[in-house]
Amino acid sequence: MGVFTMKCSTLSTNVKNSNQAYIHIMEQRTEISDLGEFGLIDHLTKNIELQNASSLLGVGDDAAVIDHFGKQTVITTDLLVEGVHFDLAYTPLKHLGYKSVVVNLSDIYAMNATPTQIVLSIAFSNRFSLEALDEFYEGVYAACRNYGVDLIGGDTSTSQKGFIISVTAMGEVAPDKFVKRDGAKKGDLICVSGDLGGAYVGLLFLEREKRIFMESPGVQPDLENETYVIGRLLKPEARKEIIEFLADAEITPTSMMDISDGLSSDILHLCKNSQLGCVLYEEKLPIAEEMRNAAFKFEIDPTACALSGGEDYELLFTIAQEDYDKIVLREDISVVGYMTEAEAGQHIITKGGSKHAITAQGWNHLKK
Amino acid sequence: MGVFTMKCSTLSTNVKNSNQAYIHIMEQRTEISDLGEFGLIDHLTKNIELQNASSLLGVGDDAAVIDHFGKQTVITTDLLVEGVHFDLAYTPLKHLGYKSVVVNLSDIYAMNATPTQIVLSIAFSNRFSLEALDEFYEGVYAACRNYGVDLIGGDTSTSQKGFIISVTAMGEVAPDKFVKRDGAKKGDLICVSGDLGGAYVGLLFLEREKRIFMESPGVQPDLENETYVIGRLLKPEARKEIIEFLADAEITPTSMMDISDGLSSDILHLCKNSQLGCVLYEEKLPIAEEMRNAAFKFEIDPTACALSGGEDYELLFTIAQEDYDKIVLREDISVVGYMTEAEAGQHIITKGGSKHAITAQGWNHLKK
Repeated sequence: MGVFTMKCSTLSTNVKNSNQAYIHIMEQRTEISDLGEFGLIDHLTKNIELQNASSLLGVGDDAAVIDHFGKQTVITTDLLVEGVHFDLAYTPLKHLGYKSVVVNLSDIYAMNATPTQIVLSIAFSNRFSLEALDEFYEGVYAACRNYGVDLIGGDTSTSQKGFIISVTAMGEVAPDKFVKRDGAKKGDLICVSGDLGGAYVGLLFLEREKRIFMESPGVQPDLENETYVIGRLLKPEARKEIIEFLADAEITPTSMMDISDGLSSDILHLCKNSQLGCVLYEEKLPIAEEMRNAAFKFEIDPTACALSGGEDYELLFTIAQEDYDKIVLREDISVVGYMTEAEAGQHIITKGGSKHAITAQGWNHLKK
Repeated sequence: MGVFTMKCSTLSTNVKNSNQAYIHIMEQRTEISDLGEFGLIDHLTKNIELQNASSLLGVGDDAAVIDHFGKQTVITTDLLVEGVHFDLAYTPLKHLGYKSVVVNLSDIYAMNATPTQIVLSIAFSNRFSLEALDEFYEGVYAACRNYGVDLIGGDTSTSQKGFIISVTAMGEVAPDKFVKRDGAKKGDLICVSGDLGGAYVGLLFLEREKRIFMESPGVQPDLENETYVIGRLLKPEARKEIIEFLADAEITPTSMMDISDGLSSDILHLCKNSQLGCVLYEEKLPIAEEMRNAAFKFEIDPTACALSGGEDYELLFTIAQEDYDKIVLREDISVVGYMTEAEAGQHIITKGGSKHAITAQGWNHLKK
């Protein structure tokens, strides 16, 4: 847990509060075992206020109950494991709670649906105090508030080692309005929301500072100038406003997914599912100035970061060409290429005009 | 993982197959990393056939989609951690997969609902081979088949240590027919399905045999005569037939929950939620002959096992007195007491006629 105090004040006002809370942890430590499992659940859930009329029954029984009125339910789940998916040396627990929810909501939006409920389970070793769990849940509840989602159930237990988080999110969508990955058509435009690669470069900074800190514990890291990319990693947002815009503009994407593994990996999924090829243009990739500058500090290619960096949680979707006029003015949507027939394969055209096959180099937790 | 070969041939024919499969694991070991994450998901999900018309979209997209037609959805989730919730030294992976699903379905039935879908996430270290995961999923799919449930999504990732399982189950129930824990009325009869304490005594045997094996690895455990109690622990079933019977008999329980922590702990929950007291009768507690004999081998009181042993996954429910005639002939439902006003407290009357306060001594993972 928060080994060094981050100077990084980005991440909204949350980080300051978070640091204060870390000091607070030093001063007061309530052992979870003092509460017992049910006391802990009561404690963690006592402030829940359900926001959705469809949340008929929340935490406190064998199961939660959701009502439906002709809508379809979308459901997704993620399991996050300390040391694999996050590093508590530089991840404030409040951010971790926020992100744990957001990454699941991102999947719901990627179905063209609106998230409505989550269930959340955690397991933790006895090195975690009640105050630490409170920090985590503060982030969870902040995400629930920001996205209008209800926490309606969950499970808490101990682990022998590390912190484990499982979130299942549900959302609703008008009948048969959900958007899958397999509906892209030849000639469709490939769109990306926001900008790419920031989270990956943010990770590089935090890993570097962690190494420095491990070698010289007295040295406090200075991340003041890298707040943008670090924020992209530690406090991602789900692209709610893009889904709302598409509905308002009466655009139904032909296919959609969120970019969690990296654009190159994810566009290959979309091509495979839609049985098509694609062409991307390097010059069209959305790259933030902050990411470009940060990448140069590591002497790495910003394009490589945009293609292979994961965890940006932007939306990748395809639209019919006739919808182009409707999106052209949106600064937060970039057309990065188009779909081709399968036989043409998957390629990217560089700024120099050369053509390269796209290979999946996204974050693959299972690769050695 | 299966360190010693269990002689116990109970647990349906599954155990034999399971042992064969364990040998199989020795002969062939496919590294998960050879497949990659997406190859693994394809592999693990290639045989799924959706059983419920409401399962519109299953594994393979950002989220699954469930349709609803005026029904209410019930949802529950559990997180199971190796070394805390299960011990792979004596838990065959197939049984673990089966149980991981069943414990969640038990919660759905405990709401008076019918389970329809699950999502399942696992994280595992590199000591697990593909064959080991196949074993686990065989159990998962067996449970899905037996209970008519669809696996519609999930997540797989690595862990630094141990095996982690998260299951979220959904079910449906006619509008406002779900049964909570807070509806019991004074005078209602307290009912328990099946028999209690078996899983706990089964655990005692397996823990004892593990100790013996650790001390003298040559000695093979002989559990031939304890198949009943060991089966209660390793292959529990959810009480689907009780819920079906209650519906057929037109009995709506006034309150219901499943017994996962132990009767004494769980009846206290039901009393607290319903703001009532209760009286239980020791002589009415349902105790299987096999459990009684097994308990005596450990020189422990079968009544204590029935009260405090957890993981039996029987149903605990209350019914109005006028429904008594409808259940009296069911051998798998025992009336163990009745609800009283809150002021009377929660007590058990022993066979000798003395009266004791009920205290929660159920399995509490957070107690030291």
